[in-house]
Amino acid sequence: MTTQMIILNGGSSSGKSGLVRCLQAELPEQWLTFGADSLIDAMPARMQTSDGGIEISTDGAVAVGAEFRALEQAWARGIVAMARAGAHIIIDDVFLGGAASQQRWQKLLDDGNDPLDVLWVGVRCDRAVAAAREIARGDRVPGMAAAQADVVHQGVHYDLEVDTTHAESLACARTIAAHLGLRRTQP
Amino acid sequence: MTTQMIILNGGSSSGKSGLVRCLQAELPEQWLTFGADSLIDAMPARMQTSDGGIEISTDGAVAVGAEFRALEQAWARGIVAMARAGAHIIIDDVFLGGAASQQRWQKLLDDGNDPLDVLWVGVRCDRAVAAAREIARGDRVPGMAAAQADVVHQGVHYDLEVDTTHAESLACARTIAAHLGLRRTQP
Amino acid sequence: MTTQMIILNGGSSSGKSGLVRCLQAELPEQWLTFGADSLIDAMPARMQTSDGGIEISTDGAVAVGAEFRALEQAWARGIVAMARAGAHIIIDDVFLGGAASQQRWQKLLDDGNDPLDVLWVGVRCDRAVAAAREIARGDRVPGMAAAQADVVHQGVHYDLEVDTTHAESLACARTIAAHLGLRRTQP
Amino acid sequence: MTTQMIILNGGSSSGKSGLVRCLQAELPEQWLTFGADSLIDAMPARMQTSDGGIEISTDGAVAVGAEFRALEQAWARGIVAMARAGAHIIIDDVFLGGAASQQRWQKLLDDGNDPLDVLWVGVRCDRAVAAAREIARGDRVPGMAAAQADVVHQGVHYDLEVDTTHAESLACARTIAAHLGLRRTQP
Repeated sequence: MTTQMIILNGGSSSGKSGLVRCLQAELPEQWLTFGADSLIDAMPARMQTSDGGIEISTDGAVAVGAEFRALEQAWARGIVAMARAGAHIIIDDVFLGGAASQQRWQKLLDDGNDPLDVLWVGVRCDRAVAAAREIARGDRVPGMAAAQADVVHQGVHYDLEVDTTHAESLACARTIAAHLGLRRTQP
Repeated sequence: MTTQMIILNGGSSSGKSGLVRCLQAELPEQWLTFGADSLIDAMPARMQTSDGGIEISTDGAVAVGAEFRALEQAWARGIVAMARAGAHIIIDDVFLGGAASQQRWQKLLDDGNDPLDVLWVGVRCDRAVAAAREIARGDRVPGMAAAQADVVHQGVHYDLEVDTTHAESLACARTIAAHLGLRRTQP
Repeated sequence: MTTQMIILNGGSSSGKSGLVRCLQAELPEQWLTFGADSLIDAMPARMQTSDGGIEISTDGAVAVGAEFRALEQAWARGIVAMARAGAHIIIDDVFLGGAASQQRWQKLLDDGNDPLDVLWVGVRCDRAVAAAREIARGDRVPGMAAAQADVVHQGVHYDLEVDTTHAESLACARTIAAHLGLRRTQP
Repeated sequence: MTTQMIILNGGSSSGKSGLVRCLQAELPEQWLTFGADSLIDAMPARMQTSDGGIEISTDGAVAVGAEFRALEQAWARGIVAMARAGAHIIIDDVFLGGAASQQRWQKLLDDGNDPLDVLWVGVRCDRAVAAAREIARGDRVPGMAAAQADVVHQGVHYDLEVDTTHAESLACARTIAAHLGLRRTQP
């Protein structure tokens, strides 16, 4: 059975986006990528100021309301349908709810008579290093990286974990590709 | 029956993105938006240089290959599944194939025992005005706007057409909301 | 004497950025552009949260502190020096202080024995239309456009005014180019 | 005498931008930053397709023409004037011409009776690591990082060198701040 989805989970500024771009470059097939950031981009701007939406405090804490959760659930169901329709999918997510977030995905994946083959990848990064990278990127509310570094992994089960603290994104991508037995023949 | 999807079709620089943001602001429910641009963002960067991907000539002509079409088809199937799962969806598309592009969506929408209620909207803009806006935005290959202005509408059937040549995006959004009998109570 | 600087002044969402890109495309020489947005990009991120920096209220009001003003003054002096060194310069500014803001520029321009030839251009946009475009662009705090539409022009003297309410950016750029007696020979 | 300018030189994807944001966060004064990227943003879009402008080959080689050089020279003169006017300035540059590029800056800095106190910083990054980061960022033509990694440092003299291969941007910024005897009191 071939892996149809790769679900990456890690805190803010743990290096997921760069890792995803390297994975897309390294894997021989064409993989589509979606995640927390592209979901928020797809939502109305007012979701970032309304009660039911997503709120980022000045200390970097993220709170998510009922409307956000409902949209996210329908979105995730659609993403799983893309994979069932034959697309290779990489998800770049932040499990704010830890194990509960994973179970939400798991439920959608098990749904139906056609279980998908998914690779679960934990993206770790030392808390202080993630906080330093948050300063270097300059487009995130300071504090998100530290707040999320550990909590997003609580109770989550992975097939594979990578750590970006001392390894480049490309090296982590190659670790994942090797685990899948895949590697693009370079042009 | 309530409208679950709004599919906007128009050429490059016809004002679709601004119209979508106004629609999201005007409509009372929370609508998710996806489209040609977000699909390309989700693809590997090499899709923009490979044979089977998407190629934009220096004169603004856009050619799309087999790999692109296959990913797009799975993507569209997933988007339709999001709508069936209860999300309100706005699609911001460019029907490079005119009527054939509409039929691809139509097939996915009719699929199954649960037909979706879709509003088809044509977004027109005078060719010269679209070409002028292409210069003003500065992030598109010159020529795309003129090349696509008419061809994307050939043989396409709409429930409603708006024209951004002389109307602001917000006015066009209100025309669409009025057609749906919807309008957000302003805060 | 040839015009060495064009200083555009207008409120938020009045269409200055698109107008500048069209001017750069239309004018035969290569013109460099700088303005309020690029100045803020050049500043430390903390200037947007510190007392002496720049603060944008949730209603779109903009307040500027002493540290901001000091940096802006040195920046403006440097921009004028670029023009004296031979670069053609377009400034895209928001005169939050109206006439006082113009006088600050005027003082720097008159400084020295080598007065620069400057074209002052007012960029008008109907308040309601600017507010509608603010919604369409989606990246500004709602209320800035309406708050600034008139106040930035109070007491300011122009060589030329353009109005983007009903005219495209490219048409306004051509009005300015015609005033200068300049027009690029199209390739 | 206090340092008024910090000039950073390093190849594409060597980590200069992140380092600059960390420096702006760490240094107690407010430092303005300018560089090769912001200069290109200030130029007309057609400079990227015209003979006298800047051309990036598909292999990542960068060629710069006479019009570009003339604008760059006036721009640099203006930046130096900003520093003389009291602004603290960080330059984030790519010395495509190696020692000759440094001499161009040096000439402007020595000009006049008021020599500026400048800190020259070399930003090194292992060629393979820079090439890997180029893939991870995904917005640069592949090959630029490798092509520039060494050549930009040829014959250049520095007060200080930092190496981002194994050190985070924030750590490199602190090395520079320590060298200056400066460090912001954290809030």
